[in-house]
Amino acid sequence: MGVVLRELQYHADDRGNLSEIYRQEWHSDIRLSQWNVSHCVNNSLRGVHLHLKHTDYLVVLSGRFVFGLRDLRRDSESFGRTAMLDLTGGALLIPPGVAHGFHCVAEGTLVYGLSHSWDLEDDLACRWDDPDHGLVFPATDPILSARDRDAGGFDDLLTRFEEMPR
Amino acid sequence: MGVVLRELQYHADDRGNLSEIYRQEWHSDIRLSQWNVSHCVNNSLRGVHLHLKHTDYLVVLSGRFVFGLRDLRRDSESFGRTAMLDLTGGALLIPPGVAHGFHCVAEGTLVYGLSHSWDLEDDLACRWDDPDHGLVFPATDPILSARDRDAGGFDDLLTRFEEMPR
Repeated sequence: MGVVLRELQYHADDRGNLSEIYRQEWHSDIRLSQWNVSHCVNNSLRGVHLHLKHTDYLVVLSGRFVFGLRDLRRDSESFGRTAMLDLTGGALLIPPGVAHGFHCVAEGTLVYGLSHSWDLEDDLACRWDDPDHGLVFPATDPILSARDRDAGGFDDLLTRFEEMPR
Repeated sequence: MGVVLRELQYHADDRGNLSEIYRQEWHSDIRLSQWNVSHCVNNSLRGVHLHLKHTDYLVVLSGRFVFGLRDLRRDSESFGRTAMLDLTGGALLIPPGVAHGFHCVAEGTLVYGLSHSWDLEDDLACRWDDPDHGLVFPATDPILSARDRDAGGFDDLLTRFEEMPR
């Protein structure tokens, strides 16, 4: 589904360790113009979100996160397919048109790059527990933002996605 | 000296916190094409290093680091000046031609962007404790890489810097 999961190679020595997390040539068609860091507490959940424009490149530095993905691009070979990924490390590239969310199973830190500065207009959301999207997060009463808590259903997200100008 | 120190704004909520660490428009003349993460143990020290080509953009995610900087660019208003910075957060942009090193005073994690992929040819080094560079790190017998431990003096670094093709 155009999603790329990359293992990171940590090189350890007496000083600690070091890993490359991103190289331009790994994804030569994408330029990451913004980077954020997010520390997440146990049982927090972000999503389900969808962007038409920007690619997310998420790097798990610590903790444990369960990512849910669903491809909503009608012209994609994996249209409609879902995936769940349980990560304690590595990096995940999520292209526009792939709905996604993540549940923090063990407190930790993510850094993530965006191909365009974050823009509310490019950030659709739906309820994390709507059975219609088919993503089953291992969460009970997770900690959500007000926006994610009040988000509508998956059907509504789909409608808005289809109506967005391309 | 062309060095930019940026405070980061962390936005906290029940889920944890989030901060922008880099935006392309903050430094529109620089494109960061590689990002690394490094976990550093107490009393580790990296440096003193100098690049002719690439800019470093260092972000302190946790721990405490003392950075030493010395401007070696003859055409710079701050040529020859030194600075020491004691950071527990924030981001630091170090342009080419500014020699730098950092001492980890409390174990922590850095992520850093580079404007060009790392290249041994673009990475000069000298002894961290050579009195000639004027950077006094608060370290006793720090943990060094073999390369940093075996590095030559500051005079030698200066000579090599001046002889590098521009």
